[in-house]
Amino acid sequence: MLGLRMWTRTVPLVGRGAWNREQIHTSTATRSQPGRLNLSGIYPPIATPFTAKEDVDYCRLAENLQKYAKMPFRGLVVQGSNGEYPYLTEEERVEVVRVVRRSLQPEKLLMAGSGCESTAATVQLTEKMAAAGADAALVVTPCFYKGKMKSGALIQHYTKVADNSPLPVVLYSVPANTGVDLPLEAVVQLSQHPNIIGLKDSGGDITRIGLIVHKTKEQDFQVLAGSAGFLMAAYCVGAVGGVCALANVLGPELCELERLCLSGSWEEARVLQQRLIEPNAAVTRDLGVPGLKQAMEWFGFHGGTTRSPLQPLTEAEIRQLRQDFSSNGWL
Amino acid sequence: MLGLRMWTRTVPLVGRGAWNREQIHTSTATRSQPGRLNLSGIYPPIATPFTAKEDVDYCRLAENLQKYAKMPFRGLVVQGSNGEYPYLTEEERVEVVRVVRRSLQPEKLLMAGSGCESTAATVQLTEKMAAAGADAALVVTPCFYKGKMKSGALIQHYTKVADNSPLPVVLYSVPANTGVDLPLEAVVQLSQHPNIIGLKDSGGDITRIGLIVHKTKEQDFQVLAGSAGFLMAAYCVGAVGGVCALANVLGPELCELERLCLSGSWEEARVLQQRLIEPNAAVTRDLGVPGLKQAMEWFGFHGGTTRSPLQPLTEAEIRQLRQDFSSNGWL
Amino acid sequence: MLGLRMWTRTVPLVGRGAWNREQIHTSTATRSQPGRLNLSGIYPPIATPFTAKEDVDYCRLAENLQKYAKMPFRGLVVQGSNGEYPYLTEEERVEVVRVVRRSLQPEKLLMAGSGCESTAATVQLTEKMAAAGADAALVVTPCFYKGKMKSGALIQHYTKVADNSPLPVVLYSVPANTGVDLPLEAVVQLSQHPNIIGLKDSGGDITRIGLIVHKTKEQDFQVLAGSAGFLMAAYCVGAVGGVCALANVLGPELCELERLCLSGSWEEARVLQQRLIEPNAAVTRDLGVPGLKQAMEWFGFHGGTTRSPLQPLTEAEIRQLRQDFSSNGWL
Amino acid sequence: MLGLRMWTRTVPLVGRGAWNREQIHTSTATRSQPGRLNLSGIYPPIATPFTAKEDVDYCRLAENLQKYAKMPFRGLVVQGSNGEYPYLTEEERVEVVRVVRRSLQPEKLLMAGSGCESTAATVQLTEKMAAAGADAALVVTPCFYKGKMKSGALIQHYTKVADNSPLPVVLYSVPANTGVDLPLEAVVQLSQHPNIIGLKDSGGDITRIGLIVHKTKEQDFQVLAGSAGFLMAAYCVGAVGGVCALANVLGPELCELERLCLSGSWEEARVLQQRLIEPNAAVTRDLGVPGLKQAMEWFGFHGGTTRSPLQPLTEAEIRQLRQDFSSNGWL
Repeated sequence: MLGLRMWTRTVPLVGRGAWNREQIHTSTATRSQPGRLNLSGIYPPIATPFTAKEDVDYCRLAENLQKYAKMPFRGLVVQGSNGEYPYLTEEERVEVVRVVRRSLQPEKLLMAGSGCESTAATVQLTEKMAAAGADAALVVTPCFYKGKMKSGALIQHYTKVADNSPLPVVLYSVPANTGVDLPLEAVVQLSQHPNIIGLKDSGGDITRIGLIVHKTKEQDFQVLAGSAGFLMAAYCVGAVGGVCALANVLGPELCELERLCLSGSWEEARVLQQRLIEPNAAVTRDLGVPGLKQAMEWFGFHGGTTRSPLQPLTEAEIRQLRQDFSSNGWL
Repeated sequence: MLGLRMWTRTVPLVGRGAWNREQIHTSTATRSQPGRLNLSGIYPPIATPFTAKEDVDYCRLAENLQKYAKMPFRGLVVQGSNGEYPYLTEEERVEVVRVVRRSLQPEKLLMAGSGCESTAATVQLTEKMAAAGADAALVVTPCFYKGKMKSGALIQHYTKVADNSPLPVVLYSVPANTGVDLPLEAVVQLSQHPNIIGLKDSGGDITRIGLIVHKTKEQDFQVLAGSAGFLMAAYCVGAVGGVCALANVLGPELCELERLCLSGSWEEARVLQQRLIEPNAAVTRDLGVPGLKQAMEWFGFHGGTTRSPLQPLTEAEIRQLRQDFSSNGWL
Repeated sequence: MLGLRMWTRTVPLVGRGAWNREQIHTSTATRSQPGRLNLSGIYPPIATPFTAKEDVDYCRLAENLQKYAKMPFRGLVVQGSNGEYPYLTEEERVEVVRVVRRSLQPEKLLMAGSGCESTAATVQLTEKMAAAGADAALVVTPCFYKGKMKSGALIQHYTKVADNSPLPVVLYSVPANTGVDLPLEAVVQLSQHPNIIGLKDSGGDITRIGLIVHKTKEQDFQVLAGSAGFLMAAYCVGAVGGVCALANVLGPELCELERLCLSGSWEEARVLQQRLIEPNAAVTRDLGVPGLKQAMEWFGFHGGTTRSPLQPLTEAEIRQLRQDFSSNGWL
Repeated sequence: MLGLRMWTRTVPLVGRGAWNREQIHTSTATRSQPGRLNLSGIYPPIATPFTAKEDVDYCRLAENLQKYAKMPFRGLVVQGSNGEYPYLTEEERVEVVRVVRRSLQPEKLLMAGSGCESTAATVQLTEKMAAAGADAALVVTPCFYKGKMKSGALIQHYTKVADNSPLPVVLYSVPANTGVDLPLEAVVQLSQHPNIIGLKDSGGDITRIGLIVHKTKEQDFQVLAGSAGFLMAAYCVGAVGGVCALANVLGPELCELERLCLSGSWEEARVLQQRLIEPNAAVTRDLGVPGLKQAMEWFGFHGGTTRSPLQPLTEAEIRQLRQDFSSNGWL
């Protein structure tokens, strides 16, 4: 088992403190073109804390960031779906990125969500995100005119964005929110663009993910699982990491799952993965951002309120949430 | 047949020029509370013309408005889905409303789309739309976190918007774009809010529309069909008008369909309605805004390009579009 | 039971000609080719009563039929979805038709569901239904391999069935059960077959129904609404009748709705239609056949149990069902 | 055909123990209760060959069986979706099982599809399948009244079937055909029934599959992947085998994928898995049973025609099918 041997080499480094990602990541680095940004690893798509008046609470954000800084994340995603970006003004979106950059270790990646409905707005926001210190742009599919968001339109959109972007672009498909699943043929074609380096796939169709890895294997194209529920399976079929809401809550555990997968410890990985499915479903599909923020509170982070129209959890929902964590041994 | 008799009275007025809506509308006026805005009638949700550089083309917009001014519309919807509002900046959204107001006859209604993803942004934009001269606010369902946009969240959202709105609010459900169908129980509850006066329903479920009319009959709640494809059926079950993309192209014909329905000329109405279904599908579900804008060109309006990521029609699509109009005798 | 009493009062009028179906139907008769079966009117898709041991209860069936015989239905549908035909053996399906035929007045139509998954089985069952005394065959779309049930396959299927059928064939699209919506282009092409005379459309998309009427207007093709929820709207756009589960319960009321639509009494029709939507939804979409059978008990018919895996209603469902009838004045 | 040649070479090794299934399977055997049937392994859900007249071609079936007998399958599934069971009469369904049993090695499992719409019919057919020699019953979810096929109804259905079945029961969820996804809570509850031993899950939601394994881990409950597209991922999260249409065509390759997964050769497994995704999609989702049967012809099996309403492939579809195999190196 090659994986395990490789891992054995790196264990001592891990023993010395935070386990050494760079060495582990050499296993996937062979896929990388010289100079291309290596996305491999785990990212929390960070939540945006608000004050009681629903203003962005930069103070509490900073406190969360200090805690995340101690975890072996590859970096942070700012303005993913869990960041409530559709509820932020453009100014807020950029300012949050600027604030995160300021506190983030230089070796950590800052992936900033810069997708808007129109191509022009996306191009502009991507530029602003670059100026604010982002390392990569995570660009969600436009979705309002979903009947027209076919391969051709999406290829045009992403091509224009990538042509103009000072940052490498990561495609972002999250059909549960957008109602649009970036078509496989569009992904394959876009993977050939020199400034499009990967995909965050939150749809969870593992057959599709495997096929994307297969059909882009000639490119330096990196697939990230968009949810913790299928993280292990995604590693199994060739993904290089994950952007997982649950990493806001159980960050070290998700990094441990990464380690187990990369080291070929599949039996242990499976046990850990299985314990993460229900908590993950609770803070994503079932209870959404309000659920995520509630769970963050239990685990020592600032979650707090969401912006309206998202609603606080009911008592029954809070009980369900707690049950999903406690029945799996996390609370 | 009461309908026909009533119509007979108004025919002479029609003969004298633009047919007299006020008299026709007395049939529905009994549903209106004193002082409530009467929404009854046909509205084009106007398209936004762009220059070659994708700037808003106010000049061509003005020319379109002059043509619409000669048609017996109840008013105009500005920033409906066909106005490409998700591709406009907030400033553009407001400015377009201001420009339309300036050229619109005072007796015509200006219904402005002011929906945003967050409640706070919707409240603010609604205020700006009021300041820009809108008569009513058309508020689309927020939709990004569609798994969380249940009745409770939507009732809260619309209640806050309506509480704060200087304008009467019209609910707007357009599931083909949003993936959210405003639940019937939310509509019924919101219909009791003094500042929520109606619903534009683009879903086209005629059973639902009939039930909404039924369950809000104690309120002064006005339902508008959101598409020409089911306009006659909607009148049949109690709607008071329609906001129809096709009215940008075949405005007089849709007003004639209204007249036939209101006057009880159902046989003639049916013949006309049937000829409108395919052209309507072509400029909405099948080919979207690019199709609508192309058809506008054929009928003497400025359509022009859309903003990216919407794409121009292919040659095959243009042929299909033409066929859908010509096979029904419109070209 | 107001409904039944009311009906009793109006029966004599029907006999005397105040509501003479034959005359009313001449309005649609102009569409009929000489010799083609006129489908116009209302049909209950009858439920199949079972004994406590889940055998077909022919005795209770006969008693229901006696009651239906007094109502001005155009005929009966036997083995529609509400007849639990998927739970009957082939022998039972045929025997039920035979029994119904024996008690049915000769001038009433017996439309028998003869659809099976395979074309060959459908051909054979259609022949048996003819031998058992059916007047027309109602043929549901095959649906198991739904990904392959495209226009081409369905056109082949129905063409073979109609070629071989001793009975005129009525197409039957019920996507809520089958997951297949018979495509419009298939309907249009099949409408040209000399032995395919109509469509029962239970999907309820009124735009589609209007377009089907429009595009088959050169043929003698008759569209029946497949549910009471959109019966009035369907008449409005050109349907000639309805096959409505609710007619098992509120038969006279549905016939009255037909009369109001055909006589142009649209205002009265609307009031009646609106009161029928919730009871109809309760016995179809919401609570299904168990709901229908429970409601039948309240209105003097034998409903009784369903076959497993359909389950009896819970107490809460029974309350909901009662509420849906009582809040609309039927109980 | 590289695949078959390769297999020929490896067969002796299997005999000699280099790939000893029994030993490999001990890794999962620890989950088995004493005496419970071990389902672990790969199964083709065999196709049913027909003569030109659409009769079952038992002769060609026998020839296929002889070829399958040389492959290290755990057994065969007879009357899965790919067996066109909805197009067979009950007599044919049982007779095919009887014929397969006669030619099948005694140590190979015969899993027979015995699901019908009604509970009573399913109970009866399961008994007949037992009498015909089946080792286990694969029971598809009833689906016609899909709105009513909730957890409660399905739990009742399967419990009655399992209570009465002489054979151990395997649940079968195939939402692409049925429109019903057996709810997770129903699976979990049913896993506690002593006569329900596993699940064939063809939905492909890997998060769900992982969670089912997790939540049934106290039971002796075995999950089989229902398609080759996610076979490796399913092994990864705890499945014990697969029932894969593609095994009718590339049986040895799927058994090799099993071997690689069970032996922890994940890198090699990934390469092989990826090459199987497109061929698998071609013979399932894209082109269905007609595609499967066409591909079988190319690989030396009898595929032949399907029963109507399934249609033969078009020339374009045949080209697409060939391309999906050849571009992955199988043709």
